[in-house]
Amino acid sequence: MIRVTVWGENVHEQTNEAVKKIYPDGIHAVIAAGLNEDPELKASTATLQEPEHGLTEAVLDATDVLTWWGHCAHGDVEDAIVDRVQKRVLEGMGLIVLHSGHYSKIFKRMMGTTCSLCWREAGEKERLWVCNPAHPITQGIDGYFELPHTEMYGEPFGIPTPDEQIFISWFQGGEVFRSGATWKRGNGNIFYFRPGHETYPIYYDDNVKLVLKNGVKWAANASRWQDDCPNVPPEKAPEPITVQGEGLHRPGEKGFS
Amino acid sequence: MIRVTVWGENVHEQTNEAVKKIYPDGIHAVIAAGLNEDPELKASTATLQEPEHGLTEAVLDATDVLTWWGHCAHGDVEDAIVDRVQKRVLEGMGLIVLHSGHYSKIFKRMMGTTCSLCWREAGEKERLWVCNPAHPITQGIDGYFELPHTEMYGEPFGIPTPDEQIFISWFQGGEVFRSGATWKRGNGNIFYFRPGHETYPIYYDDNVKLVLKNGVKWAANASRWQDDCPNVPPEKAPEPITVQGEGLHRPGEKGFS
Amino acid sequence: MIRVTVWGENVHEQTNEAVKKIYPDGIHAVIAAGLNEDPELKASTATLQEPEHGLTEAVLDATDVLTWWGHCAHGDVEDAIVDRVQKRVLEGMGLIVLHSGHYSKIFKRMMGTTCSLCWREAGEKERLWVCNPAHPITQGIDGYFELPHTEMYGEPFGIPTPDEQIFISWFQGGEVFRSGATWKRGNGNIFYFRPGHETYPIYYDDNVKLVLKNGVKWAANASRWQDDCPNVPPEKAPEPITVQGEGLHRPGEKGFS
Amino acid sequence: MIRVTVWGENVHEQTNEAVKKIYPDGIHAVIAAGLNEDPELKASTATLQEPEHGLTEAVLDATDVLTWWGHCAHGDVEDAIVDRVQKRVLEGMGLIVLHSGHYSKIFKRMMGTTCSLCWREAGEKERLWVCNPAHPITQGIDGYFELPHTEMYGEPFGIPTPDEQIFISWFQGGEVFRSGATWKRGNGNIFYFRPGHETYPIYYDDNVKLVLKNGVKWAANASRWQDDCPNVPPEKAPEPITVQGEGLHRPGEKGFS
Repeated sequence: MIRVTVWGENVHEQTNEAVKKIYPDGIHAVIAAGLNEDPELKASTATLQEPEHGLTEAVLDATDVLTWWGHCAHGDVEDAIVDRVQKRVLEGMGLIVLHSGHYSKIFKRMMGTTCSLCWREAGEKERLWVCNPAHPITQGIDGYFELPHTEMYGEPFGIPTPDEQIFISWFQGGEVFRSGATWKRGNGNIFYFRPGHETYPIYYDDNVKLVLKNGVKWAANASRWQDDCPNVPPEKAPEPITVQGEGLHRPGEKGFS
Repeated sequence: MIRVTVWGENVHEQTNEAVKKIYPDGIHAVIAAGLNEDPELKASTATLQEPEHGLTEAVLDATDVLTWWGHCAHGDVEDAIVDRVQKRVLEGMGLIVLHSGHYSKIFKRMMGTTCSLCWREAGEKERLWVCNPAHPITQGIDGYFELPHTEMYGEPFGIPTPDEQIFISWFQGGEVFRSGATWKRGNGNIFYFRPGHETYPIYYDDNVKLVLKNGVKWAANASRWQDDCPNVPPEKAPEPITVQGEGLHRPGEKGFS
Repeated sequence: MIRVTVWGENVHEQTNEAVKKIYPDGIHAVIAAGLNEDPELKASTATLQEPEHGLTEAVLDATDVLTWWGHCAHGDVEDAIVDRVQKRVLEGMGLIVLHSGHYSKIFKRMMGTTCSLCWREAGEKERLWVCNPAHPITQGIDGYFELPHTEMYGEPFGIPTPDEQIFISWFQGGEVFRSGATWKRGNGNIFYFRPGHETYPIYYDDNVKLVLKNGVKWAANASRWQDDCPNVPPEKAPEPITVQGEGLHRPGEKGFS
Repeated sequence: MIRVTVWGENVHEQTNEAVKKIYPDGIHAVIAAGLNEDPELKASTATLQEPEHGLTEAVLDATDVLTWWGHCAHGDVEDAIVDRVQKRVLEGMGLIVLHSGHYSKIFKRMMGTTCSLCWREAGEKERLWVCNPAHPITQGIDGYFELPHTEMYGEPFGIPTPDEQIFISWFQGGEVFRSGATWKRGNGNIFYFRPGHETYPIYYDDNVKLVLKNGVKWAANASRWQDDCPNVPPEKAPEPITVQGEGLHRPGEKGFS
């Protein structure tokens, strides 16, 4: 059983009638419901408004993969929580960043780059092409899938070269975008997946739901890596160390202190 | 002429007699002097103690490559200056991070990872092997070079996979370390180079000086890239956008607003 | 159950008394026996001397991961078999290349580079450091492991930048080497692992056996990707294609042929 | 002055009237003429039909960057010449592979992968988006450029993850493609650039000519790396090697032979 925490900014859903109509319980609720269709996954939600944004140490202890959706309130996410999430990802928690989450503090933190792109809201058609047909994330998608009405994101996308290119989008208005890409940072698997604007019912789409299920399974990682710059004193060195004029750096040897 | 700003933390040199003796004018002064031996380079210095840590917008406007040495005062570097330097690197300013700078805010910011390693101070011998004999950074180094007395840094080094592995070190005490590596982030060339502990006269070493000169030339980049997530309105889209039931998204067309 | 085919050149074992004494049934037999200690793995062997070098289509159909050891007879491997193995790796069969296999046709084929290195036979000590402590391949290895007597391989190693650096070796004689590294090519996971000279009993070593078991599990991949440059005729294009002066490229449309 | 050898298969131009009309002196002649507009470049041509396909050792000695266009006669290129070109690229000669050259022996050799893609000839529009606006290869291109009538190439493209993504194409028929990408192999810079079908006058296009000029300048590399697996005998080891029961492996020492 893979434990997923679906994080939602949950602001548009409270303040915008059009969004509320599509996602009455919040975008996060729909994403979590989609994941919970899969018996191997167990998804819960957390939101900006909760104490510690719902991302307490206890919640993260019980999280194998975190998904992140945010848009208009990136700046309201406390740096201490971003530090905490980054630490967990580097230790091995999976991270899936969705749509406008490209500009979240946590994605920019993990990438080190601007994560900029160009964009347009015109309800146009998007077609996501599979660049890697045998990848775990694309299983069940045959060649491409389409979203009839979406916000456009276009190149240049300010990211480090991905480890693997998973999807590239074609837009009706003439742009292209690297819509699915993966990176490993520390021991954490990171997947950016573009679809998901708040004014379109993207997270009800069967293909989007499938990619998210696949993505979570791909990102989950049982191992953990905690590194903290340890000192290795001379007496613990694998080889004896002789320093000019001082003899051996080994306990009991001449010159060792 | 490549303009280099050599940044130094300049704390050990003020507080530790042993360091002061080796670097009476500061580590930064010796690094800059080494670079200035090369007629193609013009190096100046900046330190933690100066206003804005010596890294004003005007200084960065006149900087092609920034080198960074810090150790005990990483936490004293203001986040606003780190933001500023990161922005410049992503636009195209070169960045060379030295030795204990592996744990600086700017290096961790660019990498997104822990940048952890293991270490030991025992004055042992280090031998830096060239992994890439034809790389601009290794020109003039034949196979390897040695430092008779250094601090040890050992694996695991908590970095993203480098674009290119330049040097790997062998240590007398039995460890190894990825001592020279490069990454591109945004439009910026980044080079991490390990040698340089404050209690050894490393920056007077001819091979170290040569690698730094080479590294600066490699990192310098005349182009600049400024990206800020531009909106591309429908009337600027390369292709006309038809939305179901609304007609064309083009000025003057039916349904366009 | 992961099905492994352990390929052995099987020449030294027939012609060199010292090797025969260490590996009376061949290096491949000892590698396979080590893998078969793990109940999740089922390893068989194939050798140069068999018809089609033991790598018939039927054998490869039943192979999840292929391990490759060769040294003095790389040139005797038929190109047609190399083509066949490469095709399978790109489709998704895992490949683990061992020691002197760095100069095999199949490894050079997959890498595209020289795969050159420097070397010495002096029975010296090797210490393999883990660069990636949480990686599946390094599970059960704590920091490093040692081989008391090995052939030395040193940098520069003529490979493309690895996707992940797994091990780096320290040698008693003063060299270093990227002893464990991974690449993905097509849908195939590739792991190069250095230990294994024929005149030392390396493949009886518990740590080497553990790494090989881990490596096989990491490389195994149930999915397959077969690509053959398909034509997509205009009538199968996702969007209608209008060509200047010719109308739509769609069956039944004006100008479509 | 950068010396470019423009290699052309030169078959369609001899056998197909439509192609002959567009490229009466061959595609290679037009590519070379475009490059020669730049005073920093000096381009010559070589073709399949010449002895050694025009790629003698002497020609390659005088070549900084090789461009490669082929389509219907990939199989006629002798393996010995492919070996020779690969060796030169790994030593440091730049390589630019054009359009249908994706399926050439030399590109498949350098990549190690299938280099497969999907394709369609319908004279449709292509728009090449810049993913990396500050890259040397994209200087002078503002956001994107268009080709009114081209053959379509679509994903999945069977390549190793590029070092840098330079262009991605949008096609009128609905596909996308990674149309410009770079890799470093050994000491050689490799650039794949998609445009160029024989039945369209692509190589007369100003933007295509500009990208090729930029690409050649990017790929040129003055250094050379020749590696041939050298032996480092014990007496040349940087450190003395003691082998259990045998003493030092140093000339004159006990146990040294």
